[in-house]
Order: sequence, then structure tokens, then C-alpha cells
Amino acid sequence: MLQTPPAIPGMKQDEIDTPALVIDLDAFEYNLDTMAKLLAPTGVKLRAHAKTHKSPIIARLQMARGAVGNCVQKVAEAEVLAWGGIPDILVSNEVVGAAKLARLCALARIAKVAVCADDAQQVSAIEAAAADAGIRMTVLVEIDVGAGRCGVQPGPDAVALARRIAGSRHLIFGGLQAYHGSAQHKRTPGERQTLIGGAVDASRRTVEQLRQQGLDCPIVGGAGTGTFEIEAKSGVYTEMQAGSYVFMDADYARNLDEAGAPVSTFRHALFVLSTVMSASQPGIAVLDAGHKAVAVDSGMPTVWQRPDISYVSASDEHGKLTVGSETAAPKLGEKMLLVPGHCDPTVDKFDWYVGVRNGRVECLWPVAARGGFS
Amino acid sequence: MLQTPPAIPGMKQDEIDTPALVIDLDAFEYNLDTMAKLLAPTGVKLRAHAKTHKSPIIARLQMARGAVGNCVQKVAEAEVLAWGGIPDILVSNEVVGAAKLARLCALARIAKVAVCADDAQQVSAIEAAAADAGIRMTVLVEIDVGAGRCGVQPGPDAVALARRIAGSRHLIFGGLQAYHGSAQHKRTPGERQTLIGGAVDASRRTVEQLRQQGLDCPIVGGAGTGTFEIEAKSGVYTEMQAGSYVFMDADYARNLDEAGAPVSTFRHALFVLSTVMSASQPGIAVLDAGHKAVAVDSGMPTVWQRPDISYVSASDEHGKLTVGSETAAPKLGEKMLLVPGHCDPTVDKFDWYVGVRNGRVECLWPVAARGGFS
Repeated sequence: MLQTPPAIPGMKQDEIDTPALVIDLDAFEYNLDTMAKLLAPTGVKLRAHAKTHKSPIIARLQMARGAVGNCVQKVAEAEVLAWGGIPDILVSNEVVGAAKLARLCALARIAKVAVCADDAQQVSAIEAAAADAGIRMTVLVEIDVGAGRCGVQPGPDAVALARRIAGSRHLIFGGLQAYHGSAQHKRTPGERQTLIGGAVDASRRTVEQLRQQGLDCPIVGGAGTGTFEIEAKSGVYTEMQAGSYVFMDADYARNLDEAGAPVSTFRHALFVLSTVMSASQPGIAVLDAGHKAVAVDSGMPTVWQRPDISYVSASDEHGKLTVGSETAAPKLGEKMLLVPGHCDPTVDKFDWYVGVRNGRVECLWPVAARGGFS
Repeated sequence: MLQTPPAIPGMKQDEIDTPALVIDLDAFEYNLDTMAKLLAPTGVKLRAHAKTHKSPIIARLQMARGAVGNCVQKVAEAEVLAWGGIPDILVSNEVVGAAKLARLCALARIAKVAVCADDAQQVSAIEAAAADAGIRMTVLVEIDVGAGRCGVQPGPDAVALARRIAGSRHLIFGGLQAYHGSAQHKRTPGERQTLIGGAVDASRRTVEQLRQQGLDCPIVGGAGTGTFEIEAKSGVYTEMQAGSYVFMDADYARNLDEAGAPVSTFRHALFVLSTVMSASQPGIAVLDAGHKAVAVDSGMPTVWQRPDISYVSASDEHGKLTVGSETAAPKLGEKMLLVPGHCDPTVDKFDWYVGVRNGRVECLWPVAARGGFS
């Protein structure tokens, strides 16, 4: 890891070097506890998505509050979690290519591992890799419940693929992957309810058709931070795959509740700390955190508790702030907290989390699966 | 470095694991040679920007063709170049904070190092750091030639700051930093000419005013891949800071020449190799390279030599392709080359370059300054 830690435990928060990825530990633990409390009465399990945090440490904190394990998107992320002691990992995604499947099957020796498929050819490839490794691999059928990306159609296509898995000597049919990604950021509860209602119907119908063929569906997995309360009450989904709830981001904060107010179930717990590196022009300040330090794929970051200041544009290493006419411009050297537009890819830019509480640095945690896209 | 090398020298190009950052070595060397040839008759020097490649290896290849050294944006990048043997490094940016300035001054023991300033307070901070380290630091005054971001105003403000530098015991006034970033991607030659004409005038005026005060201006630095031919002929600029020319990207390829055709001075030499990981829906294919593997801040990547296929959206780990009605959809497992919209932040996502020539992997080079934003 190139990036030297920007802080030392015990130092004051304002001594942290920048750019730094800062966790507000109180808010973070509040989020972990809140999710556990919300899911407890539903009987539905949490399989938190590690694509958000990329950290076996945080995965363990989730399991300590009842999560059954974690999801990941890539084999490299699964490796880092398994090496870090996480015992139950679902790759909630397709894995294509013999080299990657061999790596995945090797992990099945040290953790419970499962993967998704949406194609008969893939099922054959996983069977071959599992046979070669001398293990049995659990495979879920991914169904497209509305996102229009990966997944077979619910119903007969899904059943045919499940039968193929169940009939493969080295595979175990694990259930359905039924995640509706594009529903997560719909702004009104009505929109989210409508889209997830469709996903629930498609999943229920497929589960019933599988049962008619004698196939049990141990897992029906899906849901994200934007919609999990709907899936959790559906009676169909068994595992919630929310990830962003641990940190929350500026984009999720634009989702609205029934009263038209921003959803406030979880707190902002992740920030990019940055420094004003130039303030030579009126009405403008320039931060040392551009889009190499804070992801802009879901919009610009916001400046924490400073609605009078806007982060208007990001270049590689510069973030340009504009300041309301009645606001004193941030001063050269001043440090500011940014709320990322999207946490997952922002985390991917850092080697280290800096955990803070009561104005002090409490811990440093490696972003162990940073860059794990293979 | 987490990412294991996706290839081994000697293997065939189609055996490279994905996502991978691939250099077409013939096109890359053509670009290096072309820049050297274009600048030779102008007498202007190349100080190539290493923010593009983040690699002492590539910096050395540039110096072997006549570059005087490299630029970087951050101290962490300067460290990696200096540690890798690059003898002459300009941080073409402000460096704020005592810890970072101490790191910069430490580098002055092993390489020729310079930095920019746009504020009297910063000059004092650099002087203090240099005194503390027992070295003399070369400082350039950054002037705002139109980008509206960092930099003092050309003319008297710049002269005042230069005098302050020249009057500081541990500092050497190195000249002017006069980069016009927002001019680089203006599509027509006329727009680029107009903006750079203004930058040249502002720089010339400031150089003359400095001379009247007895201050020489050894460096007037600026220019990028989009405009360097204009600055090189100006008679004012002495060092060209182009970086992207080594690789070129999809966004630069949208710049037009006098005839209204895409500028073709340099070739696309950098690609993200990816695999079709799902093809379960008609008219769509999904790649294993989303915005964690290819930067989208300057638009989506294009599919190399496949104008019939569009990369329409990127999520963290998925790239969605749509396919023209007369085109056979890419097959599951098929590998495709993407031209990044923006090379610099795309390079930052990878630990390894895979250099290919004639269909074979020739070399692996580390992206040594990946993540070097501190």
C-alpha cells in the first residue's frame, strides 16, 4: 500500500493529514445497531454487502450484530474477506473465466462460498471448476427483477437454470439472487414500493414454480439500503444485502420518506477530510480532494453542515468550492469534511480508514479489498 | 499491492485476465517519438506530466527522448518519481500543510525539486519548511491564465509574490506556472487559440514586469496535450507540461483540427481489457469493467474499433453495452478493449500496466504512484 496512514491513534481530529477517509464511529455504530434492530422482528437475515466497506473488520462488526455473512461483487473481494476470517460469503454476481472460477473454488476450502449464474454455459463452467477443485459450489440463479442488466427472466427460464444446477454433480442449488439496483435511489416511497412490489411478485412466482419442481429455495437474496424495509416484509425474501447503510452517502440522503422529508433512518458516518489548498480568488476556495479522492459518479460531494458552500466541480486533484455572498470564504489551510456522493467507489480510493470519536483518532483500519475488481 | 498481475510476459494477449490496463507499446512509443519530434524545432522543453502515467519507468522513457524532467500534482507522486530515480521534478500545484512541506523538502536531498505558490502565507510556510530542512527550494508563482481555479492574477500580484519568494533566504524564484486546463478540451482550434492567446499575453506581460524588477523567469511552464503546439510557438513558454499524449483518451479524441476532423497527432495507446460477464438479455451485454475499472468523469469509454457497440452506463463493477440491431451481440466470455474517457484517473485504478506488442504480453510495469494524492 502506497498511502501512508494519514493519522496515528490518539491524535486530535484536526491533526489528520488530507485527503483522508474518516469514519465517525458513533454514527457508524448507530447505523450497525439500527439495521440489526429493524431486521430483528422480521425474521429476515442480513447478509450485508461488503462492496461498500471492503473490510473484514467491518464485516465482523456486522456479524457480531447478527449478520449471517457478507456479499461481495468480485472474487478478489471474496478472497480478502475469506483471508480475513469471514466464514460465509456470497458473490452476488456472475464470475466468468476459468482463472477466476479456480480462485473462487479454492476459497471454498476455507469458507462457505456461493456464486450466481444467469447462463447455462456458466453453470457448466462452474461445474467444471468445482470438479477440478474437488469441492461442491453453491450456485444461486440471478433473476432480472427490473434492473435490466444481468439475470435470466423470472419463471420458467430461472427454473430451467436451477434444474441444471441441481443436476450438476459438484453444484448445489442455493436459491435466487433478486436484487433491484435501480430501485434503490428512486426518490419517493411510492416509486420504490412499485418497483420492489414487482420484484417481490416475480420472486414469489419463481419460488413457487421451483417448489412445484421439487426444488427448495434456501436463499432469496436482494434489497439495498433504499428499499430493504419493503423486501424484509415481503414474506419471500430471506436475506437482505444492504451495504451503504453503514456509511450513507449524499445520494441516498436525497431519498424521501412518506412525509416528503429526507429519509433519516441512518446517519452520515463516512467523510473525506480535505484541506483548502488555494483561496486566491474571491468567492472560490480549492480543496486538495478532487475526483481521485471522492467519487463523482453519483454527483458531487456535499460539504458537511455547510449548506452555504457548494462543491461545484472536481478535477483529478482539485475540488472547487463556491461560497455564498454572505459567507466568509474558507481560509487557506482550513480543513473541511465532505459527504461523498457515493461511498462505495470513494472507499476504493483509500488504503486507510481513520476512525474518530469525540474529536480524537481512535483507530486505523486498512481498506483491505481496495481495488479488488478481478 | 492487492491486485495480482493479470498477465505474465510472453503470454498471448487474449490470455490476459480482466479487468486489465493494457498499453499498446507500438502506439505508445509512436506517441513518445512524435512529441519529441514536434518540440525539437521549437527549442521549447518537455516537462511531461506524470499525473497521467504515475510511473518512473515511463518518466525515464520520456527523458530518454529529451524531456528535462516531469511534473506531478502531489507530494506523494513526487516521492515515487524521486525514489524511482527521476532527477528533476516540478510539483505544478500548491502544497499546503507542514507535514507535506517537510516531505517535499526531504526530497530536495535526492532530486531537483520545485513547487508552486499562489499566496504569501504559503511562501512563508515553504520558507519555514526549507529552513527547517536546511535546503533551498525553488518556487514558481502560479498565475491564473483563465482556468479560474488556483493562481494569483497575472501582472502586479504575481510580481509581488515573486519578490517575496526571491527575498526569502531558503527559496529560489523559479518562474511562472501558467497552465490553462479548461482550454485543453475545447473542441475547435479557434476556441483553443483564443484561450491560449490570452494565457500567452498574460504570461508575457508578467515576465516583462518581472524583468523590470530585475527578476529573471527561468521557467514559464504550462500547456497540455490539447494546446501545446500553440504555447510552444509563443516565444514566452519554456516548458510544456503535456501528459495525456502518451496514451490519449476518448475525450481528447473529440478535439477537432482545422479541417473539422478529429485531431490525429497521437494514437490511442491505453485500453481497459474487459470480459463479457453476462449476455442473458437481448441487445445488451454486460462487461466486468464498471467505473471502479474505468473512469467516467469525462464521459463513458468507447469500445475500440466497434462503433456499432455503445458503453451506455457504468456501475461499480458492471459496464452495460447496447448493440446495434444489425450487430451480433458480444458473446459471454468475449474480451473487449475499451478506450477510457479519461486516462489519468483510469490509470489510478490499477496496480499494473500490461504492455502488449504483436498480440503478446511484453512487459508488466507497476503503476507505482497509484493513489498518490497526499
